[in-house]
Amino acid sequence: MAAANREWIFVKRPSGSGMSESDFELRDCPTPVVGDGEVLLSTHLISIDPTMRNAMSGSEVAERTEGAAYYKFMNWQVGSVVSWSIIGRVEESKAPGFEVGDMVSTFAPLRERTVAVAEACQKLPDGVSPTAVMSSMGGTALTAYLSATHIGKPETGDVVFVSGAAGATGLVACQTFQNLGCKVVGSAGTDDKVALLESLGVSAFNYKKESTLEGLRRLSPNGLNIFYDNVGGETLEQALEMMNDHGRVVMCGAISQYDMKPSERYGVRNLFHVIAKQLTLQGFIVTIFSEEHKAECIATMAQWLQEGKLQDRHTALDGFDKFPAGIRGILSGVNTGKMLIRVPLPSSML
Amino acid sequence: MAAANREWIFVKRPSGSGMSESDFELRDCPTPVVGDGEVLLSTHLISIDPTMRNAMSGSEVAERTEGAAYYKFMNWQVGSVVSWSIIGRVEESKAPGFEVGDMVSTFAPLRERTVAVAEACQKLPDGVSPTAVMSSMGGTALTAYLSATHIGKPETGDVVFVSGAAGATGLVACQTFQNLGCKVVGSAGTDDKVALLESLGVSAFNYKKESTLEGLRRLSPNGLNIFYDNVGGETLEQALEMMNDHGRVVMCGAISQYDMKPSERYGVRNLFHVIAKQLTLQGFIVTIFSEEHKAECIATMAQWLQEGKLQDRHTALDGFDKFPAGIRGILSGVNTGKMLIRVPLPSSML
Repeated sequence: MAAANREWIFVKRPSGSGMSESDFELRDCPTPVVGDGEVLLSTHLISIDPTMRNAMSGSEVAERTEGAAYYKFMNWQVGSVVSWSIIGRVEESKAPGFEVGDMVSTFAPLRERTVAVAEACQKLPDGVSPTAVMSSMGGTALTAYLSATHIGKPETGDVVFVSGAAGATGLVACQTFQNLGCKVVGSAGTDDKVALLESLGVSAFNYKKESTLEGLRRLSPNGLNIFYDNVGGETLEQALEMMNDHGRVVMCGAISQYDMKPSERYGVRNLFHVIAKQLTLQGFIVTIFSEEHKAECIATMAQWLQEGKLQDRHTALDGFDKFPAGIRGILSGVNTGKMLIRVPLPSSML
Repeated sequence: MAAANREWIFVKRPSGSGMSESDFELRDCPTPVVGDGEVLLSTHLISIDPTMRNAMSGSEVAERTEGAAYYKFMNWQVGSVVSWSIIGRVEESKAPGFEVGDMVSTFAPLRERTVAVAEACQKLPDGVSPTAVMSSMGGTALTAYLSATHIGKPETGDVVFVSGAAGATGLVACQTFQNLGCKVVGSAGTDDKVALLESLGVSAFNYKKESTLEGLRRLSPNGLNIFYDNVGGETLEQALEMMNDHGRVVMCGAISQYDMKPSERYGVRNLFHVIAKQLTLQGFIVTIFSEEHKAECIATMAQWLQEGKLQDRHTALDGFDKFPAGIRGILSGVNTGKMLIRVPLPSSML
């Protein structure tokens, strides 16, 4: 049944003025044929992540990228189908252990119906919704929980600032630090996000109404022990002013800078504080963590969800055709929690 | 014998256009009276260090400094006598174990004849000249050796870039990394300094003739595992382009930025590399190291000097009156190796 299918092609790198939805093109395509050991999936959720914007830029962002695995991987090739993290329903299986109707997460080409190697598919855990898997159990949770704990090294009573606190990673990071006994201050870009954060016990401010420096002076006048940064640029600069001696900066993301040419990015002028205040700034990508770390994360997340110590949130755009709008949306902060593209499952499932 | 004496007073903080020699004033003063447990010293060498420029700025460099011991300590008070690290000859002693003629290092008010608490004085080791103590045994060596080893964590075969490589800390750092089996690339601002570095086996370039990025591409095309930074600003930005995955940046100093208003300092735009390349940037001041670390350093330095594996260099300006010129000189890079003010010892010693 070679029914009509569609796929997302990356057709051009963004110009200097930022990304555009027309950098992608939705094309008709055949439905792939399932080989041995493979499954055919109906795409149900697509994870939308800030780093997609870096993949659009390719290697142009560095003078030298040969040594960096990230820039090799996060480099979508113009003219090719975009691949990313999805959750889908098995429609056809030529792999033992996978049956029609199974819900799985995997990394696959962005097609409405797409084929994946079964060994690279994880079945969703019982009792957890697909959206909760993406917001609190998958790559987002691994990123946030493992870096917060293993790089931030929080101790009871530490004061932590999380930037982009109402985003996918920010929300898990905030709650991780809270569950480990820290006082958490968070920034976000709307009053609704601030209210959500406050409902979780986070001291929050709207960075569009007061500067990060003003917000931190007000909510954390005695300074910061840990800064968990999702935003970069001016936010990083202002938070460095408020760090205490021997503080740790977990550098998770720099979303404020991604949709700009490298030469136009914000220049951080106060890095001497790193010396004077004896700070450690550590960047990471989630692949640094081991299988043991991942198992620790999944077990902790499952327990926290069960105990009500982890609230998950997501913002979904409905429709496979919304993929480029999703990337634009996450860069402008339309999301609270995990940003997703949601595609209704075929009626065969209902 | 209340003979004429002179002392250096810090009379005003630098204006926005940078420091001036007239920010200090040389005044006549009485020779201090020696109390019990004290010694009277003839000042012979004054250590000149880049961070003196930060002490001139006081706390104005940070929006919030309450949490930072550095900014409290490196904050000379206008109108007061400057205190700093010196080597002097004991002229009078009211302390057991110290005799006239002993050479000691200590931290004391900058007076031609000055008084110090004997317990805070260290006698110079046998067979090491006073200048060698300052360049290879004192705070400079502690700073360079301990941070290179304990923060840089060098492994045999690592490629290391040392900025400001012909400066006091840079020279010890270069030789430390070499002695531990690393390949070292260094930058300096004159051809004579480049030649000195090359004579020590360091691959060096003159950053006034080619950019840091060009120099590194030429001398270290496969990238860097460690960056030992004394310079900051644009040098840091360009070196980040060349870092390999999981690299370490030892943030020791940012001399290129000290003689500027904080708002005019160079903005580093490519900090996303810290994330993408999974780098660790760690700043420090020498006080983080323990007494055990210090003992390790002194023993290693003594052995390396004896084995000819550590060359020490210094640049001296002669005359107690040259103190402000010394600070200006180190900021403009007139020194190779340790920068010193040297005062002839009184004839009583000769």
